[in-house]
Amino acid sequence: MAVSPPMAFTERAEQLRDEINQALATQLRFSDNCPAPLAEAVRYATLGPGKRLRPMLVLLASESCGGSVARALPAAVAIEMVHAYSLIHDDLPAMDDDDLRRGRPTCHRAFDEATAILAGDALLSRAFELIASQLGPADVAVACLSILAQAAGAEGMVGGQMQDLLATATYEESENAHCEQRLESIHRCKTGALFVAALRMGGLVASASAEELAALTAYGENVGLAFQIVDDLLDVGGSEDQMGKRVQKDDSQGKLTFPGAVGVAESKARVAALIQQGCDALGPLGSRADCLRELAAYLGERNS
Amino acid sequence: MAVSPPMAFTERAEQLRDEINQALATQLRFSDNCPAPLAEAVRYATLGPGKRLRPMLVLLASESCGGSVARALPAAVAIEMVHAYSLIHDDLPAMDDDDLRRGRPTCHRAFDEATAILAGDALLSRAFELIASQLGPADVAVACLSILAQAAGAEGMVGGQMQDLLATATYEESENAHCEQRLESIHRCKTGALFVAALRMGGLVASASAEELAALTAYGENVGLAFQIVDDLLDVGGSEDQMGKRVQKDDSQGKLTFPGAVGVAESKARVAALIQQGCDALGPLGSRADCLRELAAYLGERNS
Repeated sequence: MAVSPPMAFTERAEQLRDEINQALATQLRFSDNCPAPLAEAVRYATLGPGKRLRPMLVLLASESCGGSVARALPAAVAIEMVHAYSLIHDDLPAMDDDDLRRGRPTCHRAFDEATAILAGDALLSRAFELIASQLGPADVAVACLSILAQAAGAEGMVGGQMQDLLATATYEESENAHCEQRLESIHRCKTGALFVAALRMGGLVASASAEELAALTAYGENVGLAFQIVDDLLDVGGSEDQMGKRVQKDDSQGKLTFPGAVGVAESKARVAALIQQGCDALGPLGSRADCLRELAAYLGERNS
Repeated sequence: MAVSPPMAFTERAEQLRDEINQALATQLRFSDNCPAPLAEAVRYATLGPGKRLRPMLVLLASESCGGSVARALPAAVAIEMVHAYSLIHDDLPAMDDDDLRRGRPTCHRAFDEATAILAGDALLSRAFELIASQLGPADVAVACLSILAQAAGAEGMVGGQMQDLLATATYEESENAHCEQRLESIHRCKTGALFVAALRMGGLVASASAEELAALTAYGENVGLAFQIVDDLLDVGGSEDQMGKRVQKDDSQGKLTFPGAVGVAESKARVAALIQQGCDALGPLGSRADCLRELAAYLGERNS
């Protein structure tokens, strides 16, 4: 599968990524109260290479509802911080025990375990601080904080990671149909919740209507699941060079994956169908949501 | 030192503790999206025995500025969640490596490391979610979220824990005068920041004036530091039975402590002076702050 999104979209994405990276770097400056190694670890884990997908969803969702990039930027930066914190903690020896992330040593490898745990903790608090102090008006900030906190927590991303760990431990005893259901539940929590939160925050910042928010939510649910199935497919067929992290580890760890549960061909068919459903859901937003449509197509075809 | 606070205060404290415990239990019910072992670990680590000191500071600060307990309760419960999360992560093998907390196995001992890391993460998000969704009006919620997030993060509690780990590693090379300064900085961040945040949130919920907020802040800074010096003294002189956690470990780990740096007698003198200064700072609040004064006296004399 070759990646060939229209030029206009890739340029726009590059532009947004630059804005996000600049804002991230600005928001990760700390006062002298923060010990230097902690600040370094936080910046190392967050400012390295990355797709900046979740913040881009915030910004594009805001635009698709007539809002500005500038107003949505604090929410975008905050969700990338939450994502970065989750990667640091997921990579820890007690969890997925990974040495490589985005082509570089993971945070606990580059620093140490204690520093990595604290760097993740610091990022999560910073994300909430950022929205509380820089996103206005207050009622929108509170709504965004509530969405982000719920998506990040025990009933969202953290719960998904826990489900994932439990599923790996008990995988062999389960049946296939049950596996599929379980996989969808894991992905919905672990990845989908933050995707949907990104889109809803973008919509809220732009004063989206209930209909627009529902459209963004449906898009996020479908595209979020597609993104995760592609991740599973890349783990089977991608190279470590392309991915910047260990591949084929899911299989070697006996981990539950979509290709493992329903096969590669069926997994690819699901991705295509989910991307289509996600784009269809954007109907109420008209052509203003074209960038979100192109992003979805790109995510369905990505190779890293 | 015998503990003999006036009866009225201990009764009031007991009453508030009951309200806090009930609200905590209510706020730690999760939907089916949260895997059962994660919910159990969160509840185990939070609902066990505890002084509930920080939430009590929120409630008493609110009362001292003419506010109600009911309105301040979400902020009170949230700060106890932040405290509980910090204890779970601080106890981890990569950090302080403790097996005992509040007289019971620590979270990673009762469950496992991965579950403990995630339980801490879940609690931090839940704390912010709670304030965002249940504390009103929106401008007060945003102000409280900003205060709590900053106090919990890299320039507050998390930074203090990092300073503490770094100080332990380099203790022997430092000089005494330098040690003292460093200790104060650690304690100001690690404990003081959350004390001050508790008091300021209580004040904000009660629409406190700038003068009242300044009084609460000064009280928090002084009493927070006194609390931590007492902790160091108890580690030297307390028993494991009284404390419900390992004692004399600071000394055995070569950890920086106040008795170690300035001696036991001088440490006790500091505690008394700080408690006095804290109570003096409450002047502008008049007799409505009597419970805070009594709480300070109690903290100066506690033996567990």
